[in-house]
Amino acid sequence: MTHLLLIGIGTGNPEHLTLQAIRALNRADLVLIPRKGADKADLADLRRAICAEVITNPATRLVEFDLPTRDPATPGYIARVNDWHDAIATVWAETIAREGGQIVALLVWGDPSLYDSTLRIAARLEPAPRITVIPGITSMQALTAAHAIPLNALAAPFLVTTGRQLRDHGWPAGVDTLVVMLDGECSFQSLPPEGVTIWWGAYVGMAEEIIRHGPLGTTGPDIITTRAAARAAHGWIMDIYILRR
Amino acid sequence: MTHLLLIGIGTGNPEHLTLQAIRALNRADLVLIPRKGADKADLADLRRAICAEVITNPATRLVEFDLPTRDPATPGYIARVNDWHDAIATVWAETIAREGGQIVALLVWGDPSLYDSTLRIAARLEPAPRITVIPGITSMQALTAAHAIPLNALAAPFLVTTGRQLRDHGWPAGVDTLVVMLDGECSFQSLPPEGVTIWWGAYVGMAEEIIRHGPLGTTGPDIITTRAAARAAHGWIMDIYILRR
Repeated sequence: MTHLLLIGIGTGNPEHLTLQAIRALNRADLVLIPRKGADKADLADLRRAICAEVITNPATRLVEFDLPTRDPATPGYIARVNDWHDAIATVWAETIAREGGQIVALLVWGDPSLYDSTLRIAARLEPAPRITVIPGITSMQALTAAHAIPLNALAAPFLVTTGRQLRDHGWPAGVDTLVVMLDGECSFQSLPPEGVTIWWGAYVGMAEEIIRHGPLGTTGPDIITTRAAARAAHGWIMDIYILRR
Repeated sequence: MTHLLLIGIGTGNPEHLTLQAIRALNRADLVLIPRKGADKADLADLRRAICAEVITNPATRLVEFDLPTRDPATPGYIARVNDWHDAIATVWAETIAREGGQIVALLVWGDPSLYDSTLRIAARLEPAPRITVIPGITSMQALTAAHAIPLNALAAPFLVTTGRQLRDHGWPAGVDTLVVMLDGECSFQSLPPEGVTIWWGAYVGMAEEIIRHGPLGTTGPDIITTRAAARAAHGWIMDIYILRR
């Protein structure tokens, strides 16, 4: 039975690695590195750099594979994602079968529990592998660290959601703090800005980190401009923000 | 100006420490360790053990201080907590003044952003210190890692809340996944259990870790019994759970 190690690596700062992650990487026979072709957001270089820095076990081999792409012809967001996960699971299985190795590591951006597909893809493998999850620093934590703010108001709840949810459903009832992830469209624009403060960050935790915070009405437009310029300069962007009212 | 380093240390597994946390500890002149008297939940031993293991800078000194207690005579939960935070800030300031040191580290259980008071206490210091936050692995992540589950359903939101909120307000509208923290009273008992699954963990990430999962109706009572026995055996408990419907 294959033993899969799903290793959270944090958000691009090699120092986000935990001692547990480093030990896990050094237990692996095989480390699978995804490649997205010309897309700089695959961060394959960063994954290679992390491995080069912390793997001291000469028996650990890095193997790269081409990440399948989502088929835009498949109707429906969920169906499109499910098909894509099937395709990735197939590539993993083929790669592991070809390369051999009992203990196989995957480096997961952030933490495997948070808006990440690795656990769902792993669940498609047959026979079912043994799965060990190593937690990693998430972009939520890198964002709050960069701003030196707490996520929650004292004893209060907060909702973690996506840009799509915010656009489709507006500000959810009964909660005053939102963490918005997976938002390629600055969906905060869909909200009335009165009384709302935003804390935004791109490339949080990395050397390229950019942060902004202030009233949504005045800071929102600045973020839209800043985000577009950063995306053009780097060729990719990952960002996240907190809204509090 | 004092430079405060608020260092997330994870949930009790010394291997949760990040490379960034280890570097920060070794930059500090002073590491402040709180003591809660006879309360084993102060985890002072664990903090000392972590420092002993990773601090290699001979100039870094550990200083212990007695954590003030909350005054049960103060009416109102929020007022009681605010007074308590004032008292802790005073003790920090006195300890730093007495011991000297420009760079002062505090080891924060989990991550400084998540249901933790350290940032709020730091904001009370005068003159205002420079604050650097080092993110750490949270109990949410240690819980999902232990169960090898994602926090969110595909592209769906989740709410992070407290036991008190759950007791007072029931299941919040518009969200199917809840993470419940700070719950000393197994507040899941206040919910109708039909159609709800629970993933629970105590001492997540530590050697003492206990986890349970299943339908709330049958797993809930098991958790109540297991929790009481573990608390009696260890003298303290920290637990967390996820509910999904």
